[in-house]
Amino acid sequence: MANPTAAMLVIGDEILSGRTRDANMHYLAGELTTHGIDLKEVRIVSDDAPAIVAATRALAGAYDHVFTSGGIGPTHDDITADCIAEAFGRTIDVRDDARALLEAHYANSGLELNEARLRMARIPEGASLIENPVSTAPGFTVENVHVMAGVPSVFRAMVASVLPTLIGGAPVLSQSLRVMRGEGDIAANLGQLAKDFADLSIGCYPFQQDGAFGANVVVRGTDGARIDAAVTRLADELGL
Amino acid sequence: MANPTAAMLVIGDEILSGRTRDANMHYLAGELTTHGIDLKEVRIVSDDAPAIVAATRALAGAYDHVFTSGGIGPTHDDITADCIAEAFGRTIDVRDDARALLEAHYANSGLELNEARLRMARIPEGASLIENPVSTAPGFTVENVHVMAGVPSVFRAMVASVLPTLIGGAPVLSQSLRVMRGEGDIAANLGQLAKDFADLSIGCYPFQQDGAFGANVVVRGTDGARIDAAVTRLADELGL
Repeated sequence: MANPTAAMLVIGDEILSGRTRDANMHYLAGELTTHGIDLKEVRIVSDDAPAIVAATRALAGAYDHVFTSGGIGPTHDDITADCIAEAFGRTIDVRDDARALLEAHYANSGLELNEARLRMARIPEGASLIENPVSTAPGFTVENVHVMAGVPSVFRAMVASVLPTLIGGAPVLSQSLRVMRGEGDIAANLGQLAKDFADLSIGCYPFQQDGAFGANVVVRGTDGARIDAAVTRLADELGL
Repeated sequence: MANPTAAMLVIGDEILSGRTRDANMHYLAGELTTHGIDLKEVRIVSDDAPAIVAATRALAGAYDHVFTSGGIGPTHDDITADCIAEAFGRTIDVRDDARALLEAHYANSGLELNEARLRMARIPEGASLIENPVSTAPGFTVENVHVMAGVPSVFRAMVASVLPTLIGGAPVLSQSLRVMRGEGDIAANLGQLAKDFADLSIGCYPFQQDGAFGANVVVRGTDGARIDAAVTRLADELGL
Protein backbone atom coordinates (compact mmCIF):
# COMPACT_ATOMS: atom_id res chain seq x y z
CA MET A 1 0.00 0.00 0.00
CA ALA A 2 1.28 3.43 -0.83
CA ASN A 3 2.30 5.68 2.05
CA PRO A 4 0.05 8.60 3.06
CA THR A 5 0.92 11.87 1.32
CA ALA A 6 1.48 15.28 2.85
CA ALA A 7 2.10 18.90 1.98
CA MET A 8 3.48 21.74 4.05
CA LEU A 9 2.29 25.32 3.96
CA VAL A 10 4.72 27.87 5.38
CA ILE A 11 3.22 31.28 6.13
CA GLY A 12 5.83 33.97 6.36
CA ASP A 13 6.83 37.22 4.75
CA GLU A 14 10.16 36.96 6.52
CA ILE A 15 11.20 33.97 4.42
CA LEU A 16 10.00 35.43 1.11
CA SER A 17 11.88 38.66 1.79
CA GLY A 18 15.12 36.73 2.31
CA ARG A 19 15.40 37.94 5.90
CA THR A 20 15.32 34.51 7.51
CA ARG A 21 15.99 31.00 6.31
CA ASP A 22 13.24 28.49 6.95
CA ALA A 23 14.19 25.76 9.40
CA ASN A 24 10.84 24.05 9.91
CA MET A 25 10.56 22.60 6.43
CA HIS A 26 13.79 20.68 6.70
CA TYR A 27 12.81 19.38 10.15
CA LEU A 28 9.32 18.30 9.11
CA ALA A 29 10.65 16.61 5.97
CA GLY A 30 12.93 14.42 8.06
CA GLU A 31 10.25 13.57 10.62
CA LEU A 32 7.69 12.64 7.96
CA THR A 33 10.20 10.42 6.16
CA THR A 34 10.85 8.56 9.43
CA HIS A 35 7.13 8.25 10.03
CA GLY A 36 6.38 6.83 6.56
CA ILE A 37 4.46 9.85 5.29
CA ASP A 38 5.57 11.16 1.88
CA LEU A 39 6.04 14.92 1.75
CA LYS A 40 5.04 15.77 -1.83
CA GLU A 41 4.87 19.55 -1.91
CA VAL A 42 5.78 22.64 0.06
CA ARG A 43 4.33 26.09 -0.49
CA ILE A 44 5.52 29.31 1.09
CA VAL A 45 3.08 32.22 0.93
CA SER A 46 3.08 35.68 2.47
CA ASP A 47 0.91 36.97 5.32
CA ASP A 48 -1.91 37.57 2.85
CA ALA A 49 -5.36 36.18 3.60
CA PRO A 50 -6.50 35.25 0.06
CA ALA A 51 -3.15 33.51 -0.59
CA ILE A 52 -3.36 31.49 2.64
CA VAL A 53 -6.99 30.50 2.07
CA ALA A 54 -6.38 29.43 -1.54
CA ALA A 55 -3.26 27.43 -0.70
CA THR A 56 -4.98 25.69 2.22
CA ARG A 57 -7.90 24.60 0.05
CA ALA A 58 -5.68 23.42 -2.79
CA LEU A 59 -3.34 21.40 -0.58
CA ALA A 60 -6.05 19.96 1.70
CA GLY A 61 -7.85 18.70 -1.39
CA ALA A 62 -4.78 17.14 -2.96
CA TYR A 63 -2.98 15.40 -0.07
CA ASP A 64 -3.81 13.24 2.93
CA HIS A 65 -2.29 15.72 5.40
CA VAL A 66 -1.33 19.38 5.40
CA PHE A 67 1.03 20.86 8.00
CA THR A 68 1.16 24.62 8.35
CA SER A 69 3.80 26.69 10.10
CA GLY A 70 3.55 30.31 11.20
CA GLY A 71 1.06 33.10 11.80
CA ILE A 72 -0.72 31.91 14.97
CA GLY A 73 0.77 34.38 17.47
CA PRO A 74 -0.83 37.43 19.13
CA THR A 75 0.12 40.22 16.69
CA HIS A 76 -1.77 41.93 13.85
CA ASP A 77 0.07 39.93 11.19
CA ASP A 78 -0.99 36.57 12.72
CA ILE A 79 -3.95 35.71 10.51
CA THR A 80 -3.51 31.98 9.92
CA ALA A 81 -6.26 30.73 12.26
CA ASP A 82 -8.86 33.01 10.67
CA CYS A 83 -7.74 31.97 7.19
CA ILE A 84 -7.98 28.26 8.00
CA ALA A 85 -11.50 28.78 9.36
CA GLU A 86 -12.43 30.62 6.18
CA ALA A 87 -10.90 27.94 3.97
CA PHE A 88 -13.24 25.35 5.52
CA GLY A 89 -16.26 27.67 5.90
CA ARG A 90 -16.15 27.41 9.70
CA THR A 91 -16.70 30.06 12.35
CA ILE A 92 -13.89 31.02 14.70
CA ASP A 93 -13.92 32.42 18.22
CA VAL A 94 -12.11 32.27 21.54
CA ARG A 95 -12.70 28.77 22.86
CA ASP A 96 -13.04 27.97 26.56
CA ASP A 97 -10.54 25.12 26.72
CA ALA A 98 -7.88 27.11 24.87
CA ARG A 99 -8.57 30.16 27.03
CA ALA A 100 -8.21 28.04 30.18
CA LEU A 101 -4.79 26.84 29.01
CA LEU A 102 -3.64 30.41 28.49
CA GLU A 103 -5.13 31.64 31.77
CA ALA A 104 -3.24 29.00 33.75
CA HIS A 105 -0.03 29.67 31.85
CA TYR A 106 -0.08 33.44 32.26
CA ALA A 107 -1.18 33.22 35.90
CA ASN A 108 1.95 31.15 36.53
CA SER A 109 4.25 33.39 34.54
CA GLY A 110 3.07 36.66 36.02
CA LEU A 111 2.36 38.06 32.56
CA GLU A 112 -0.96 39.61 31.64
CA LEU A 113 -3.41 37.64 29.50
CA ASN A 114 -4.29 40.73 27.50
CA GLU A 115 -6.54 41.08 24.45
CA ALA A 116 -3.67 40.38 22.05
CA ARG A 117 -2.68 37.15 23.80
CA LEU A 118 -6.28 36.06 24.01
CA ARG A 119 -6.31 35.98 20.20
CA MET A 120 -4.22 32.81 20.54
CA ALA A 121 -7.30 31.08 21.99
CA ARG A 122 -9.27 31.70 18.79
CA ILE A 123 -9.94 28.22 17.39
CA PRO A 124 -12.08 27.28 14.36
CA GLU A 125 -15.29 25.40 15.28
CA GLY A 126 -14.86 21.65 15.54
CA ALA A 127 -11.05 21.73 15.61
CA SER A 128 -9.03 19.59 17.99
CA LEU A 129 -6.14 21.21 19.87
CA ILE A 130 -2.47 20.38 19.35
CA GLU A 131 -0.52 20.47 22.58
CA ASN A 132 2.27 23.02 22.96
CA PRO A 133 4.55 22.05 25.86
CA VAL A 134 6.94 24.92 25.08
CA SER A 135 4.78 28.03 25.33
CA THR A 136 1.24 26.69 25.93
CA ALA A 137 -0.72 28.51 23.19
CA PRO A 138 -2.06 25.52 21.26
CA GLY A 139 -2.06 24.60 17.61
CA PHE A 140 -5.09 22.86 16.16
CA THR A 141 -6.23 20.34 13.59
CA VAL A 142 -9.19 21.02 11.28
CA GLU A 143 -10.07 18.08 9.05
CA ASN A 144 -6.71 17.09 7.52
CA VAL A 145 -4.90 20.37 8.24
CA HIS A 146 -2.55 20.64 11.23
CA VAL A 147 -1.90 24.25 12.18
CA MET A 148 1.32 24.92 14.07
CA ALA A 149 3.53 27.79 15.19
CA GLY A 150 6.47 29.19 13.24
CA VAL A 151 8.96 29.51 16.12
CA PRO A 152 11.16 26.45 15.52
CA SER A 153 11.19 25.16 19.11
CA VAL A 154 7.39 25.40 19.29
CA PHE A 155 6.92 23.94 15.82
CA ARG A 156 9.00 20.92 16.76
CA ALA A 157 7.09 20.36 19.98
CA MET A 158 3.79 20.51 18.09
CA VAL A 159 5.03 18.08 15.45
CA ALA A 160 5.95 15.73 18.29
CA SER A 161 2.40 16.13 19.65
CA VAL A 162 0.59 15.48 16.40
CA LEU A 163 2.69 12.93 14.48
CA PRO A 164 2.05 9.96 16.82
CA THR A 165 -1.70 10.43 16.26
CA LEU A 166 -1.37 9.91 12.50
CA ILE A 167 -1.20 6.61 10.71
CA GLY A 168 2.11 6.35 8.90
CA GLY A 169 3.39 3.92 6.33
CA ALA A 170 6.65 2.10 5.91
CA PRO A 171 9.61 4.33 6.78
CA VAL A 172 11.58 5.34 3.72
CA LEU A 173 15.15 4.05 3.86
CA SER A 174 18.02 5.39 1.82
CA GLN A 175 21.66 4.84 0.96
CA SER A 176 23.90 7.21 -0.90
CA LEU A 177 27.01 6.83 -3.00
CA ARG A 178 29.41 9.71 -3.51
CA VAL A 179 30.91 9.71 -7.00
CA MET A 180 33.69 12.11 -7.97
CA ARG A 181 32.70 12.28 -11.63
CA GLY A 182 30.43 14.53 -13.60
CA GLU A 183 26.80 13.47 -13.74
CA GLY A 184 27.09 13.04 -17.50
CA ASP A 185 29.61 10.22 -17.05
CA ILE A 186 27.28 8.12 -14.93
CA ALA A 187 23.92 9.08 -16.43
CA ALA A 188 23.66 5.95 -18.61
CA ASN A 189 24.34 3.65 -15.63
CA LEU A 190 21.77 5.49 -13.53
CA GLY A 191 19.12 5.39 -16.23
CA GLN A 192 19.48 1.63 -16.60
CA LEU A 193 19.52 1.17 -12.81
CA ALA A 194 16.29 3.15 -12.47
CA LYS A 195 14.66 0.87 -15.05
CA ASP A 196 15.90 -2.35 -13.42
CA PHE A 197 14.94 -1.21 -9.90
CA ALA A 198 11.63 0.44 -10.69
CA ASP A 199 10.46 -0.12 -7.10
CA LEU A 200 13.17 2.25 -5.86
CA SER A 201 13.65 5.98 -6.31
CA ILE A 202 17.10 6.83 -7.65
CA GLY A 203 18.17 10.45 -7.49
CA CYS A 204 21.38 12.09 -8.64
CA TYR A 205 22.45 15.32 -6.91
CA PRO A 206 25.43 17.04 -8.47
CA PHE A 207 27.86 19.22 -6.54
CA GLN A 208 30.98 21.20 -7.14
CA GLN A 209 34.00 20.96 -4.89
CA ASP A 210 37.39 22.59 -5.42
CA GLY A 211 36.48 23.15 -9.06
CA ALA A 212 35.66 19.48 -9.73
CA PHE A 213 32.17 18.13 -10.34
CA GLY A 214 30.82 15.18 -8.42
CA ALA A 215 27.45 13.68 -7.64
CA ASN A 216 25.68 12.05 -4.74
CA VAL A 217 23.53 9.20 -5.91
CA VAL A 218 20.72 8.52 -3.44
CA VAL A 219 18.69 5.31 -3.58
CA ARG A 220 15.43 5.35 -1.62
CA GLY A 221 12.80 2.76 -0.92
CA THR A 222 11.15 0.72 1.77
CA ASP A 223 13.04 -2.57 1.17
CA GLY A 224 16.55 -2.40 2.60
CA ALA A 225 17.78 -5.48 0.72
CA ARG A 226 16.72 -4.05 -2.65
CA ILE A 227 18.48 -0.78 -1.84
CA ASP A 228 21.64 -2.73 -0.94
CA ALA A 229 21.46 -4.61 -4.22
CA ALA A 230 21.08 -1.46 -6.29
CA VAL A 231 23.88 0.44 -4.57
CA THR A 232 26.22 -2.57 -4.76
CA ARG A 233 25.58 -2.98 -8.48
CA LEU A 234 26.20 0.70 -9.17
CA ALA A 235 29.39 0.73 -7.12
CA ASP A 236 30.63 -2.32 -9.05
CA GLU A 237 29.81 -0.76 -12.40
CA LEU A 238 31.64 2.43 -11.49
CA GLY A 239 34.62 0.57 -10.02
CA LEU A 240 34.11 2.04 -6.55
CA MET B 1 3.53 51.83 -9.25
CA ALA B 2 3.60 48.44 -7.59
CA ASN B 3 6.74 46.35 -7.97
CA PRO B 4 6.72 43.35 -10.34
CA THR B 5 5.80 40.07 -8.63
CA ALA B 6 7.60 36.74 -8.75
CA ALA B 7 7.32 33.13 -7.67
CA MET B 8 9.95 30.45 -7.34
CA LEU B 9 9.50 26.80 -8.23
CA VAL B 10 12.05 24.43 -6.68
CA ILE B 11 12.16 20.98 -8.25
CA GLY B 12 13.75 18.44 -5.99
CA ASP B 13 13.02 15.19 -4.23
CA GLU B 14 16.15 15.72 -2.16
CA ILE B 15 14.62 18.68 -0.34
CA LEU B 16 11.22 17.06 0.23
CA SER B 17 12.90 13.95 1.66
CA GLY B 18 14.80 16.08 4.18
CA ARG B 19 18.13 14.99 2.77
CA THR B 20 19.31 18.46 1.82
CA ARG B 21 18.37 21.94 2.85
CA ASP B 22 17.49 24.32 0.06
CA ALA B 23 19.96 27.18 -0.36
CA ASN B 24 18.73 28.73 -3.60
CA MET B 25 15.45 30.05 -2.24
CA HIS B 26 17.10 32.16 0.42
CA TYR B 27 19.60 33.50 -2.12
CA LEU B 28 16.99 34.36 -4.74
CA ALA B 29 14.75 36.02 -2.13
CA GLY B 30 17.55 38.40 -1.20
CA GLU B 31 18.49 39.18 -4.81
CA LEU B 32 14.88 39.88 -5.80
CA THR B 33 14.37 42.19 -2.82
CA THR B 34 17.45 44.18 -3.87
CA HIS B 35 16.19 44.30 -7.44
CA GLY B 36 12.71 45.56 -6.50
CA ILE B 37 10.85 42.40 -7.47
CA ASP B 38 8.45 41.06 -4.83
CA LEU B 39 8.76 37.31 -4.21
CA LYS B 40 5.18 36.30 -3.38
CA GLU B 41 5.24 32.51 -3.35
CA VAL B 42 7.59 29.54 -3.39
CA ARG B 43 6.60 26.00 -4.29
CA ILE B 44 8.72 22.91 -3.90
CA VAL B 45 7.61 19.87 -5.87
CA SER B 46 9.14 16.46 -6.48
CA ASP B 47 10.69 15.14 -9.70
CA ASP B 48 7.22 14.31 -10.99
CA ALA B 49 6.16 15.54 -14.43
CA PRO B 50 2.47 16.29 -13.78
CA ALA B 51 3.38 18.18 -10.57
CA ILE B 52 6.01 20.29 -12.35
CA VAL B 53 3.73 21.06 -15.31
CA ALA B 54 0.78 22.04 -13.10
CA ALA B 55 2.88 24.25 -10.82
CA THR B 56 4.55 25.96 -13.79
CA ARG B 57 1.21 26.83 -15.35
CA ALA B 58 -0.32 28.04 -12.09
CA LEU B 59 2.63 30.26 -11.15
CA ALA B 60 3.27 31.61 -14.67
CA GLY B 61 -0.36 32.68 -14.83
CA ALA B 62 -0.37 34.35 -11.42
CA TYR B 63 2.92 36.28 -11.26
CA ASP B 64 5.05 38.50 -13.50
CA HIS B 65 8.06 36.18 -13.26
CA VAL B 66 8.73 32.58 -12.29
CA PHE B 67 12.21 31.33 -11.40
CA THR B 68 12.79 27.58 -11.34
CA SER B 69 15.70 25.71 -9.80
CA GLY B 70 16.75 22.12 -10.40
CA GLY B 71 16.22 19.25 -12.79
CA ILE B 72 18.12 20.42 -15.90
CA GLY B 73 21.16 18.13 -15.70
CA PRO B 74 22.02 15.05 -17.77
CA THR B 75 20.49 12.23 -15.70
CA HIS B 76 17.19 10.34 -15.98
CA ASP B 77 15.62 12.36 -13.16
CA ASP B 78 16.28 15.68 -14.92
CA ILE B 79 12.89 16.31 -16.50
CA THR B 80 12.36 20.03 -15.94
CA ALA B 81 13.05 21.21 -19.53
CA ASP B 82 10.55 18.74 -20.98
CA CYS B 83 7.97 19.73 -18.36
CA ILE B 84 8.35 23.45 -19.09
CA ALA B 85 7.90 22.77 -22.81
CA GLU B 86 4.76 20.78 -22.05
CA ALA B 87 3.41 23.48 -19.75
CA PHE B 88 3.52 25.97 -22.62
CA GLY B 89 2.54 23.52 -25.39
CA ARG B 90 5.91 23.87 -27.11
CA THR B 91 8.13 21.30 -28.78
CA ILE B 92 11.58 20.58 -27.37
CA ASP B 93 14.73 19.29 -29.04
CA VAL B 94 18.51 19.64 -29.04
CA ARG B 95 19.19 23.14 -30.30
CA ASP B 96 22.24 24.04 -32.40
CA ASP B 97 23.41 27.03 -30.37
CA ALA B 98 23.15 25.14 -27.07
CA ARG B 99 24.90 22.11 -28.60
CA ALA B 100 27.71 24.36 -29.88
CA LEU B 101 28.25 25.71 -26.35
CA LEU B 102 28.53 22.18 -24.96
CA GLU B 103 30.79 20.99 -27.81
CA ALA B 104 33.25 23.79 -27.18
CA HIS B 105 33.15 23.23 -23.42
CA TYR B 106 33.70 19.46 -23.54
CA ALA B 107 36.37 19.75 -26.27
CA ASN B 108 38.30 22.02 -23.89
CA SER B 109 37.78 19.84 -20.85
CA GLY B 110 38.70 16.55 -22.48
CA LEU B 111 35.38 15.00 -21.40
CA GLU B 112 33.09 13.25 -23.82
CA LEU B 113 29.92 15.02 -25.01
CA ASN B 114 27.91 11.81 -24.74
CA GLU B 115 24.21 11.25 -25.23
CA ALA B 116 23.40 12.03 -21.61
CA ARG B 117 25.25 15.37 -21.66
CA LEU B 118 23.65 16.28 -24.99
CA ARG B 119 20.30 16.23 -23.18
CA MET B 120 21.39 19.51 -21.60
CA ALA B 121 21.13 21.13 -25.06
CA ARG B 122 17.42 20.30 -25.25
CA ILE B 123 15.67 23.68 -25.28
CA PRO B 124 11.94 24.40 -25.76
CA GLU B 125 11.14 26.13 -29.07
CA GLY B 126 11.34 29.90 -28.93
CA ALA B 127 13.22 30.03 -25.62
CA SER B 128 16.15 32.35 -25.06
CA LEU B 129 19.25 30.94 -23.36
CA ILE B 130 20.50 31.96 -19.92
CA GLU B 131 24.28 32.10 -19.75
CA ASN B 132 26.06 29.70 -17.38
CA PRO B 133 29.64 30.89 -16.80
CA VAL B 134 30.25 28.12 -14.23
CA SER B 135 29.61 24.92 -16.15
CA THR B 136 28.39 26.10 -19.59
CA ALA B 137 25.16 24.07 -19.95
CA PRO B 138 22.65 26.93 -20.31
CA GLY B 139 19.40 27.72 -18.59
CA PHE B 140 16.60 29.24 -20.61
CA THR B 141 13.66 31.62 -20.47
CA VAL B 142 10.25 30.70 -21.94
CA GLU B 143 7.71 33.50 -21.76
CA ASN B 144 7.92 34.62 -18.11
CA VAL B 145 9.59 31.47 -16.74
CA HIS B 146 13.33 31.45 -16.10
CA VAL B 147 14.68 27.90 -15.86
CA MET B 148 17.89 27.46 -13.91
CA ALA B 149 20.11 24.77 -12.42
CA GLY B 150 19.86 23.46 -8.86
CA VAL B 151 23.60 23.38 -8.02
CA PRO B 152 23.94 26.53 -5.92
CA SER B 153 27.06 27.93 -7.64
CA VAL B 154 25.41 27.49 -11.05
CA PHE B 155 22.06 28.81 -9.86
CA ARG B 156 23.70 31.97 -8.56
CA ALA B 157 25.59 32.53 -11.79
CA MET B 158 22.38 32.14 -13.79
CA VAL B 159 20.50 34.55 -11.53
CA ALA B 160 23.32 37.04 -12.16
CA SER B 161 22.86 36.49 -15.92
CA VAL B 162 19.10 36.91 -15.97
CA LEU B 163 18.26 39.52 -13.30
CA PRO B 164 19.86 42.52 -15.06
CA THR B 165 17.63 41.82 -18.10
CA LEU B 166 14.44 42.24 -16.03
CA ILE B 167 12.78 45.51 -15.15
CA GLY B 168 12.73 45.88 -11.37
CA GLY B 169 10.94 48.31 -9.12
CA ALA B 170 12.02 50.27 -6.09
CA PRO B 171 14.29 48.23 -3.83
CA VAL B 172 12.59 47.24 -0.61
CA LEU B 173 14.32 48.73 2.42
CA SER B 174 13.95 47.46 5.97
CA GLN B 175 14.89 48.19 9.55
CA SER B 176 14.45 45.90 12.48
CA LEU B 177 14.07 46.38 16.20
CA ARG B 178 14.92 43.61 18.64
CA VAL B 179 12.58 43.57 21.63
CA MET B 180 13.19 41.30 24.62
CA ARG B 181 9.50 40.94 25.50
CA GLY B 182 6.83 38.49 24.51
CA GLU B 183 4.93 39.37 21.36
CA GLY B 184 1.75 39.68 23.38
CA ASP B 185 3.18 42.64 25.29
CA ILE B 186 3.81 44.70 22.17
CA ALA B 187 0.95 43.51 19.97
CA ALA B 188 -1.27 46.53 20.69
CA ASN B 189 1.54 48.97 19.78
CA LEU B 190 2.27 47.08 16.59
CA GLY B 191 -1.38 46.93 15.54
CA GLN B 192 -1.73 50.70 15.89
CA LEU B 193 1.60 51.29 14.12
CA ALA B 194 0.47 49.13 11.19
CA LYS B 195 -2.70 51.24 10.90
CA ASP B 196 -0.86 54.57 11.08
CA PHE B 197 1.84 53.51 8.61
CA ALA B 198 -0.34 51.65 6.14
CA ASP B 199 2.23 52.25 3.37
CA LEU B 200 4.74 50.07 5.25
CA SER B 201 4.78 46.37 6.01
CA ILE B 202 5.28 45.66 9.72
CA GLY B 203 6.14 42.12 10.70
CA CYS B 204 6.75 40.61 14.12
CA TYR B 205 8.95 37.52 14.33
CA PRO B 206 9.11 35.90 17.75
CA PHE B 207 12.07 33.92 19.02
CA GLN B 208 13.15 32.11 22.14
CA GLN B 209 16.54 32.60 23.70
CA ASP B 210 17.77 31.13 26.98
CA GLY B 211 14.18 30.39 27.92
CA ALA B 212 13.02 33.99 27.41
CA PHE B 213 10.74 35.10 24.60
CA GLY B 214 11.59 38.06 22.40
CA ALA B 215 10.60 39.39 19.02
CA ASN B 216 12.22 41.02 16.03
CA VAL B 217 10.00 43.72 14.61
CA VAL B 218 10.80 44.33 10.95
CA VAL B 219 9.52 47.41 9.12
CA ARG B 220 9.71 47.26 5.33
CA GLY B 221 8.91 49.72 2.58
CA THR B 222 10.40 51.74 -0.24
CA ASP B 223 10.59 55.11 1.61
CA GLY B 224 13.51 55.18 4.02
CA ALA B 225 12.28 58.27 5.90
CA ARG B 226 8.90 56.67 6.62
CA ILE B 227 10.62 53.53 7.89
CA ASP B 228 12.80 55.67 10.17
CA ALA B 229 9.75 57.44 11.52
CA ALA B 230 7.90 54.19 12.27
CA VAL B 231 10.85 52.52 13.99
CA THR B 232 11.63 55.64 16.02
CA ARG B 233 8.04 55.89 17.23
CA LEU B 234 7.94 52.24 18.22
CA ALA B 235 11.27 52.46 20.06
CA ASP B 236 9.99 55.52 21.97
CA GLU B 237 6.75 53.80 22.89
CA LEU B 238 8.59 50.74 24.17
CA GLY B 239 11.18 52.79 26.03
CA LEU B 240 14.08 51.41 23.97
